[in-house]
Amino acid sequence: MREVYISGAAMTPFARHTRSIQDLVQEAVLGAVRNAEIKLSDIQAMYSANVFGGMILGQVLVRDLGITGPALYNVENACASGATAVHLARMALQLGKYDTVVVWGVEMLSQLGGGTIPLQRNDYKTELYAAQGLTLPSVYAMRATRYLHERNLPRSVLAEIAVKNRAAGSRNPYAQQRKEVTVEEVLASRQVAEPLTLLQCCPSVVDGAACVVLTTRKPTNSAKPVRILGSAVQSGHQELGCGDILDGEITARTARLAYEEAGVDPSEVDVVELHDAFTIAELIYYEALGLCAPGESASLLQSGATSLGGRVPVNPSGGLLAKGHPLGATGVAQMVEIVWQLRGQAEGRQAEGARVGVTQCTGGGIAGVDHAASSVHVLAV
Amino acid sequence: MREVYISGAAMTPFARHTRSIQDLVQEAVLGAVRNAEIKLSDIQAMYSANVFGGMILGQVLVRDLGITGPALYNVENACASGATAVHLARMALQLGKYDTVVVWGVEMLSQLGGGTIPLQRNDYKTELYAAQGLTLPSVYAMRATRYLHERNLPRSVLAEIAVKNRAAGSRNPYAQQRKEVTVEEVLASRQVAEPLTLLQCCPSVVDGAACVVLTTRKPTNSAKPVRILGSAVQSGHQELGCGDILDGEITARTARLAYEEAGVDPSEVDVVELHDAFTIAELIYYEALGLCAPGESASLLQSGATSLGGRVPVNPSGGLLAKGHPLGATGVAQMVEIVWQLRGQAEGRQAEGARVGVTQCTGGGIAGVDHAASSVHVLAV
Repeated sequence: MREVYISGAAMTPFARHTRSIQDLVQEAVLGAVRNAEIKLSDIQAMYSANVFGGMILGQVLVRDLGITGPALYNVENACASGATAVHLARMALQLGKYDTVVVWGVEMLSQLGGGTIPLQRNDYKTELYAAQGLTLPSVYAMRATRYLHERNLPRSVLAEIAVKNRAAGSRNPYAQQRKEVTVEEVLASRQVAEPLTLLQCCPSVVDGAACVVLTTRKPTNSAKPVRILGSAVQSGHQELGCGDILDGEITARTARLAYEEAGVDPSEVDVVELHDAFTIAELIYYEALGLCAPGESASLLQSGATSLGGRVPVNPSGGLLAKGHPLGATGVAQMVEIVWQLRGQAEGRQAEGARVGVTQCTGGGIAGVDHAASSVHVLAV
Repeated sequence: MREVYISGAAMTPFARHTRSIQDLVQEAVLGAVRNAEIKLSDIQAMYSANVFGGMILGQVLVRDLGITGPALYNVENACASGATAVHLARMALQLGKYDTVVVWGVEMLSQLGGGTIPLQRNDYKTELYAAQGLTLPSVYAMRATRYLHERNLPRSVLAEIAVKNRAAGSRNPYAQQRKEVTVEEVLASRQVAEPLTLLQCCPSVVDGAACVVLTTRKPTNSAKPVRILGSAVQSGHQELGCGDILDGEITARTARLAYEEAGVDPSEVDVVELHDAFTIAELIYYEALGLCAPGESASLLQSGATSLGGRVPVNPSGGLLAKGHPLGATGVAQMVEIVWQLRGQAEGRQAEGARVGVTQCTGGGIAGVDHAASSVHVLAV
């Protein structure tokens, strides 16, 4: 099967932008194409990931670049949209259908009025849950409460995730939030859903775009060639109330598939970008991704292993908590960060000598345990 | 490369439904699974095509069927959404990633308030055009006016398309419009955009779902195995005003790719489902699909070759004009009809002895000439 490389990577800063969504995507696409040292005319297909932009958005986004002839696929999978688009693109490359494609993710959330991410339409259950207060923050809050109770831990352990990721984000010019915070500040910030305070929830009033060039031609540009060794997408099937809310089952299942395809053991992973939409999520995903044994996530965090300079830095970009979470863009932006890390280009926040990186997104319905989409990728130099 | 079969096909009637969107999809999925004589647990991945249903819709649609564990891809490409989903699914099957998947398309347009299909958001050009009255019906009306002028033809030739397709639709229990009409009735119906009258525009206040099972295992059920020989998706790049509005360039380009892959000459095609959103579209697509020489579409129609019982029946289902056009569902429903035709199961509207069938969708921005998506599939027994 053909090897698939990421030969170009670029993103816009994540911020409240006053530019158009077209501008954001074009900056990311042109940046990735330039980074890959290819021409726009080398692009054989395009994959556009977005959640809220409307019909046939991808074609509208790149029309003014004059590259709208090739096949374009508009892909949506909630928080995993961008990663799903990469997954689909990789399959077409492995098949030999194309040899060079671009994948971008984009979202303009500042135009949606802010607040909690709008819930999906057409779903009586989501409406029913929401009417009872079961929004995403409150479900993650229940997971956090259960986590602290089961493991007899203080709230500060949650806050430490925010402190770690904001510290990393302060070194990332692409992050929306670039100010370091302390445990005290995190705990003292406004309560969103007890025990989750404002600084424990990712910013969702944010815009941005990210793009990668995927190719089966061994890249000839000067950067180290990054390969996609494993790529898995799975969906969720767990009903709320039918299982353990601390169980990251979907994520663990997806990760197993990705590691298996990559032939990589979790112990070999050097750097991770994971889906820290809320502080508690990062702790749950440490275990789901096999970065530590079940029950050991707080110890892993407190050992410093997942901080910059640690054994396996997690969210060196600042993660969703610092960078912000423009849904469709997030999965691709995670890969951009890992590409930079594996190439040794993550100035000021570099995981030294990193050779294997992982990205993970899990999103969708009620806290990603019901009608959810999950994606895990394993990248390597 | 692995052969890909359509082993199961089913759809709901296209109608204004009072049932939920979940109900429609589940009827189509269960019907296709039953038709393929497989079990729900045989499904390894799902492709969900939809335009207006919102975030992570596919997962919500099948949650209650209990098959939400496997990968699910939400795909959108305007009118070509369903066909694009089939195209992506086929690539994964050819690669050997899966051996059995389902692809469905669904749309609930009756909940959107009716009228012209809502325009895409985030596009200043579409807004600019719309403000000048350049909606889809008016652009197709310009194409119709030009067509009649260039070729010195009477308006009745447009009406004959509606008469032909409504006659076919009257034999299709899945069509929304099942009453035959005459040329006089078509011409006397309310003017929408001169020269296009109401009966020359496809109904867009309509709901429906369609599903196919794709597999690389040679089907063992009793129906004739239908193969997908060619599948192409392309995008549009033609600016309004930069070319001939009668030129179906995107469609012709897509068709060439699909025929080439299939190793099929247009003269070998026995039956066609094409994108007759307006009567003029069918005439343009006759030429773009190579069913006749350039300039010969009216003669082809008037020879009776494209009517039921003719050499190459076009839109034996009634097409969009009779069946209605629930966007996300249309591309998959076209394939369901061609599967029935190739199996000899299109009772009352059968293209006798058909062995090669074609489906075509072209949609998106301004009449499918700008920021558009186009898809052509070649199927055979």
